[in-house]
Amino acid sequence: MSTQKLWGGRFQAQAESWVDEFGASINFDQLMADEDIEGSLAHVKMLKKTQILSASDCDQIISGLKELQEELHAGKLKFTVENEDIHMNIESILTEKIGPVAGKLHTGRSRNDQVATDFHLYVKNRLPQIVAEIKTIQKTLVSLAEDNVETIMPGYTHLQHAQPISYGHYLMAYYSMLKRDVERFEFNMKHADISPLGAAALAGTTFPIDREFTAKELGFNDIYVNSLDAVSDRDFALEFLSNASILMMHLSRFCEEISMWVSYEFNYLELSDKYTTGSSIMPQKKNPDMAELIRGKSGRVYGHLIGLLSTMKSLPLAYNKDLQEDKEGTFDTVKTLLPALKVFNGMISTIKVNKDNMYHATENDFSNATELADYLATKGIPFREAHGIVGQLVLKGIETHKNLQDISMEEFKKISPLIEDDIYNELKPEVAVERRNSLGGTGFKQVKMQIELAKKDLN
Amino acid sequence: MSTQKLWGGRFQAQAESWVDEFGASINFDQLMADEDIEGSLAHVKMLKKTQILSASDCDQIISGLKELQEELHAGKLKFTVENEDIHMNIESILTEKIGPVAGKLHTGRSRNDQVATDFHLYVKNRLPQIVAEIKTIQKTLVSLAEDNVETIMPGYTHLQHAQPISYGHYLMAYYSMLKRDVERFEFNMKHADISPLGAAALAGTTFPIDREFTAKELGFNDIYVNSLDAVSDRDFALEFLSNASILMMHLSRFCEEISMWVSYEFNYLELSDKYTTGSSIMPQKKNPDMAELIRGKSGRVYGHLIGLLSTMKSLPLAYNKDLQEDKEGTFDTVKTLLPALKVFNGMISTIKVNKDNMYHATENDFSNATELADYLATKGIPFREAHGIVGQLVLKGIETHKNLQDISMEEFKKISPLIEDDIYNELKPEVAVERRNSLGGTGFKQVKMQIELAKKDLN
Amino acid sequence: MSTQKLWGGRFQAQAESWVDEFGASINFDQLMADEDIEGSLAHVKMLKKTQILSASDCDQIISGLKELQEELHAGKLKFTVENEDIHMNIESILTEKIGPVAGKLHTGRSRNDQVATDFHLYVKNRLPQIVAEIKTIQKTLVSLAEDNVETIMPGYTHLQHAQPISYGHYLMAYYSMLKRDVERFEFNMKHADISPLGAAALAGTTFPIDREFTAKELGFNDIYVNSLDAVSDRDFALEFLSNASILMMHLSRFCEEISMWVSYEFNYLELSDKYTTGSSIMPQKKNPDMAELIRGKSGRVYGHLIGLLSTMKSLPLAYNKDLQEDKEGTFDTVKTLLPALKVFNGMISTIKVNKDNMYHATENDFSNATELADYLATKGIPFREAHGIVGQLVLKGIETHKNLQDISMEEFKKISPLIEDDIYNELKPEVAVERRNSLGGTGFKQVKMQIELAKKDLN
Amino acid sequence: MSTQKLWGGRFQAQAESWVDEFGASINFDQLMADEDIEGSLAHVKMLKKTQILSASDCDQIISGLKELQEELHAGKLKFTVENEDIHMNIESILTEKIGPVAGKLHTGRSRNDQVATDFHLYVKNRLPQIVAEIKTIQKTLVSLAEDNVETIMPGYTHLQHAQPISYGHYLMAYYSMLKRDVERFEFNMKHADISPLGAAALAGTTFPIDREFTAKELGFNDIYVNSLDAVSDRDFALEFLSNASILMMHLSRFCEEISMWVSYEFNYLELSDKYTTGSSIMPQKKNPDMAELIRGKSGRVYGHLIGLLSTMKSLPLAYNKDLQEDKEGTFDTVKTLLPALKVFNGMISTIKVNKDNMYHATENDFSNATELADYLATKGIPFREAHGIVGQLVLKGIETHKNLQDISMEEFKKISPLIEDDIYNELKPEVAVERRNSLGGTGFKQVKMQIELAKKDLN
Repeated sequence: MSTQKLWGGRFQAQAESWVDEFGASINFDQLMADEDIEGSLAHVKMLKKTQILSASDCDQIISGLKELQEELHAGKLKFTVENEDIHMNIESILTEKIGPVAGKLHTGRSRNDQVATDFHLYVKNRLPQIVAEIKTIQKTLVSLAEDNVETIMPGYTHLQHAQPISYGHYLMAYYSMLKRDVERFEFNMKHADISPLGAAALAGTTFPIDREFTAKELGFNDIYVNSLDAVSDRDFALEFLSNASILMMHLSRFCEEISMWVSYEFNYLELSDKYTTGSSIMPQKKNPDMAELIRGKSGRVYGHLIGLLSTMKSLPLAYNKDLQEDKEGTFDTVKTLLPALKVFNGMISTIKVNKDNMYHATENDFSNATELADYLATKGIPFREAHGIVGQLVLKGIETHKNLQDISMEEFKKISPLIEDDIYNELKPEVAVERRNSLGGTGFKQVKMQIELAKKDLN
Repeated sequence: MSTQKLWGGRFQAQAESWVDEFGASINFDQLMADEDIEGSLAHVKMLKKTQILSASDCDQIISGLKELQEELHAGKLKFTVENEDIHMNIESILTEKIGPVAGKLHTGRSRNDQVATDFHLYVKNRLPQIVAEIKTIQKTLVSLAEDNVETIMPGYTHLQHAQPISYGHYLMAYYSMLKRDVERFEFNMKHADISPLGAAALAGTTFPIDREFTAKELGFNDIYVNSLDAVSDRDFALEFLSNASILMMHLSRFCEEISMWVSYEFNYLELSDKYTTGSSIMPQKKNPDMAELIRGKSGRVYGHLIGLLSTMKSLPLAYNKDLQEDKEGTFDTVKTLLPALKVFNGMISTIKVNKDNMYHATENDFSNATELADYLATKGIPFREAHGIVGQLVLKGIETHKNLQDISMEEFKKISPLIEDDIYNELKPEVAVERRNSLGGTGFKQVKMQIELAKKDLN
Repeated sequence: MSTQKLWGGRFQAQAESWVDEFGASINFDQLMADEDIEGSLAHVKMLKKTQILSASDCDQIISGLKELQEELHAGKLKFTVENEDIHMNIESILTEKIGPVAGKLHTGRSRNDQVATDFHLYVKNRLPQIVAEIKTIQKTLVSLAEDNVETIMPGYTHLQHAQPISYGHYLMAYYSMLKRDVERFEFNMKHADISPLGAAALAGTTFPIDREFTAKELGFNDIYVNSLDAVSDRDFALEFLSNASILMMHLSRFCEEISMWVSYEFNYLELSDKYTTGSSIMPQKKNPDMAELIRGKSGRVYGHLIGLLSTMKSLPLAYNKDLQEDKEGTFDTVKTLLPALKVFNGMISTIKVNKDNMYHATENDFSNATELADYLATKGIPFREAHGIVGQLVLKGIETHKNLQDISMEEFKKISPLIEDDIYNELKPEVAVERRNSLGGTGFKQVKMQIELAKKDLN
Repeated sequence: MSTQKLWGGRFQAQAESWVDEFGASINFDQLMADEDIEGSLAHVKMLKKTQILSASDCDQIISGLKELQEELHAGKLKFTVENEDIHMNIESILTEKIGPVAGKLHTGRSRNDQVATDFHLYVKNRLPQIVAEIKTIQKTLVSLAEDNVETIMPGYTHLQHAQPISYGHYLMAYYSMLKRDVERFEFNMKHADISPLGAAALAGTTFPIDREFTAKELGFNDIYVNSLDAVSDRDFALEFLSNASILMMHLSRFCEEISMWVSYEFNYLELSDKYTTGSSIMPQKKNPDMAELIRGKSGRVYGHLIGLLSTMKSLPLAYNKDLQEDKEGTFDTVKTLLPALKVFNGMISTIKVNKDNMYHATENDFSNATELADYLATKGIPFREAHGIVGQLVLKGIETHKNLQDISMEEFKKISPLIEDDIYNELKPEVAVERRNSLGGTGFKQVKMQIELAKKDLN
């Protein structure tokens, strides 16, 4: 049997403990214990400043909360399911500590604005951590790109060799993706960094509270101007889950490539032993577990996004218990993202690049076919026609195991008398790459330009 | 720094502990500790029977595993992140206990078929528990329906009063939904109850193992006939998550109705104090928290479904580390479903029905309009025309605050001379309900028939 | 049998028509015909300016494209499945019109950057349309709120009466939600408004193209600095689908409330006949179909979001055919949003508010319990204790059918001698609302302040 | 302005056409025109048999409907948005054809049971088509497997070479997956094949209809016993979407492998020109478009599943307009699945297997390491120890570019004097495969057994 609830005045019967347990959130919302105390401290300071409570009442509460905060940090606080959630737990412990005056803390406040405040603080505090981890990866990418501006590898479309590219250019593509991720998480702050404190249950309060004071105290940048919205809004969490999904999608793409590129067949990259694992049965295995796990975890984050979207659908205003489901997915996403980003950074920092294998692949794959077609187009043959001519040459080349650079000038002349000796140079992978000097192209200068831009961005 | 891994032969460097932690699954897969030991016991008994290992080696391992099992049940086993997962943890503890002979347990087996076996056992063991909880609710529904065959309430479409119905009929609609849920979970067993043990890493093994023996030992009904499929198949988990999603959707519909029907405006139902909670700020509140929470949790289960579907998409055969993500969503779904079903049952068992309010609502809402239209149609007026006539009467009735039963015979005769005095009887809600005696309709006889059918089903 | 493909040089056999049809996108990507021609015009103007092609070739192509554009607008263009997609269709028609010189249009460009350009233009062009429709709703909300600042209604949490609020305040809550929607769609522009044109297949091109020229010509604000990223990035579409999902979630909440509030039981609102429909069988029905349909369509938009996230997961760079799946969900979302927003605006603009019913509900529901508790707290009783006292009064009141305002002063004095006559005034719903004058509360002044802020925002 | 609606009796104002259009479903539900007429024919035959309507009225309606059916099949029916949906369109055309007697068709029926009937018939009719297409693929797989029992290829886990396997075994893994898909779609029939006709709006009807007659007439296997359930149940569609999602996930895995295996690096498979496409810019490209597109389309189907789950969440009984959203996703899934399955079958039927490349890969990859470990274990060395020894050999082998089969007997003896000359035979890939003769393993006998079982299944 549960103990008497703080809200139990009008109740004649009490829930059995397994029902309490189902309804309780203390198992997960204790993650916000710090934020909850912080929020209460700001609230009681405001109650003192506005003289809603007497200074001596407030001082008692403040010193009780600070004691509690220390005990929390020292790992000494014990929470119970009977007290449902972190807010009731904290209040209950506070009451034990300082007596009934603790009951005054809740003046002009409700659990609805309290939990919204805690959750906002939680997200607001994690966003910069996530941005910092992304930026660490960006720095790693820039540094790897600098080392690999002239590392030639096959560029793929449809997982077929398309045109040779710079490995540095490839790395900088992920830099660009992550840059958008950073921008999204930074924009996310706009809607996380708003104080709901003072919205009370849903309608504001009759007490002459000072919401600007508490917002400032808690470091919030903005204040909800509508109390119904303040307690029912979870946009900032949905934005966070959406941003996290897109970020994980980006990582999943790189991880997919790592997984292929460390394979026996590709053999372009080698992962450090530190980021791989073995097999319990096959002694030769060196598995890119970390890459696979990050890739796999994108599904989990997608699930949290769709979970919260589904939960919020068709919910009438203002607060409904369904909203309690907002937290676990968000917490788990943070718990997934932070180590995933750290592991990802460690993994790519320690990759060994098999440059010879990469280069070799670009010599035998007809990925210089575009060079020949462009060459012909430059000589005045309409591109579509040039494309057709080269297509035929490739087909023949596959049959005769002959690459384009192996075609004799005599044969070339039969195709077009306009072809000159300089064609052999243009068919070289490194020349093909270097010459793709259009803005943002894979040409070495362009890659260097990107790296310079990135360095500026990161400072 | 981690200790030497069991698979570490070819590795020169080891992961740092935070990388290990990211890759480890022991925090959640220890839920399958029982299944893991059970699987190992079956495996070693088979190794003994087939003489792949000596009887004395096997006996040592068996007695070690049994000791371990007892310690597990006594809550004495301690698992570590260094040992990654439940399989390696168990093997490591076993080695401490019985020495290097423990290493022979893994003969002819791999972690891939081992984890698949554990996970199959886990799901296979939970399915009947879930089915049992659903059936408990079905019994409650039948019992409540029996008490309410003749309880008249408004039937809704578009949340507008449509036609009066029996509350018993309404309850039996949910009985029917849950019956399909049971059928789905029972079908789910077909694909959960297959033994992957002996598929080894992916290709089977050269040891003369006896897969039929281990399958029988573990109570499996069937055996995977393709080893690649055995280690990479997670259909049974996807079916489970899909079935759970549909079940939660059903519960969410009932919970939505409860939430509305206990409102001030409807006031059709009253929840027991045991399944409601109060407000920290508003003393009068009695919130249907449990209904809301179950409704809200449907989003979470949807999320787990889409999470696993996303994770499995495009995964090459056979095992990839991404598959480690199959478990948490499934475990959490079980952890959500079992109490949700129990709480739901408790909640509906203790509902108080405000029959008068329900009945009263059917008298003043024009929900007998169909009766009048059908009456006219029976007298030979084409239904579409009858529909139009009654529509006009309703419009006028709303303006004049007059229900259809309040129209005088004189006025009725103006509409159609075919209308007789018996119309007043047919406009009564209880008559309207009783007369809907088509198969499966809301007529009292039909509801009783459903109840009888249900009782047979449940026995 | 298909006709010869434009890319068919190296192919010896051709697909059968049903395979072509499966692969073709012309059935949906013809929606971007305008954008495709626009993009081609910019490209060829650039080819002229940079002298990559001769002026006369370019002029021929330009005049051909312009003719084609006119025919498109006149509805005269016919597209075929054999030509796969909108790009090949346009090029093929152009070739018919102006001969082989059309083949030169594709110089220095690939379908990969072409389709990315079209898709960016498509999203970039729709964003302001969607923002405009949202703002129209915001204006309607402000206008309705102005008319209803002093319209008193029950404020809900858990769908239970919590505290009386202003209907204007309720309306302004949705204003705030939509404001965030606008901000999200405006931020979306940042990543939609970037030109990929010139990225070519994936690596840039050897032709001396001028990407700044084409970007400017097409009105793009920015240019992708990495060609791999340019052709493989679909973040802007994911952001769009995510923003659309959150927007639809907001609308679904309002629609849910409309659906309840027009019910017989609530009877707070009445929808115009223009936004409701009838029943084929029940003449009295007036169904809030539009509200239900908008609510239902949120599921569809969620589906498109998760669809594209799933499709993009684990895709290696740069372009893969999977990306063709990016468009239909996005197009359908636009096709869903634009009319949904328009219908929503029409629906709420024409709602009739049954103010008396709303007010009446706040008098009989104990939603002034907080007033009493706050009153006691002001008199020095700790809030928790005051809460308990009032809870008991409510319980007794329910049993004796007596509201708080019906308690005699004598009885009040028994509870606390501190209670004075002014309590009766404070228990009035309109006073309760007015007094909630904390920042962002439901007090009339606060609602008016929100309206003023909103008006400034909207100008 | 719209024309007068069939349900318009009580309405004073009409919707504008763009509102009508938003609410109308005729653009997509005309796909069920056949089912709708079929359902009406069964209904009117029943009305005749039960003498609810006169024989002559019924005969007129029947002959009118049959005419209409012929016109439909001849492509002559024109539907209009004003008539909202397929049901109202058909009734309206019928009225034009046979006059007001058409209005009697709706006696004892509502659009709610009518649309449910149509949708059930639609799904019920497509399930066997889908099953047939899957079985065609299964036959192809069996036939390909027969040709490739002894084709040796690397078996993968973590995309790393694990152990050599039979390509036939790999193909049969997909056979097993598809077998479960067939079972799921067959189970799906259980809940699709139930007649809702006669449930009327939600409560049944007062007319003495014969639901068994109509069910039999329409070929339904079962009848809903609860009318509320009959009109609000969409489980059969959710099951369908869930089954389709799992099926597409299976295909996505094979397509992912095809996409990798046709790459330059793997070069294990070659697709027919008929199932590949070229590039508009790179003449050498031969892209596995069809494989990528099928893989990409799994996202779309996932989206439809989550879309309908979200839409159905929290919907009160019985019918709500939200349910109109059930169809498009389902229709599109059918439209996706049928050609995807056909294309998939064509694609895999025409694949060329580069057996030499596959075999060669198994000789140089240490995938015979398990053989050596197992060999040592058989000689009495605990498996864990054997695993460690072989791990060291692999590490050394990689450094010295020496495969296990290249180790001299002298060196082997140093590792263990128990190693004999027979080790060299066991290290051969084909021997390794052949010896994996445990039930369901990749050993040739086991693969042949699977093929025999499959052939029996398919007959």
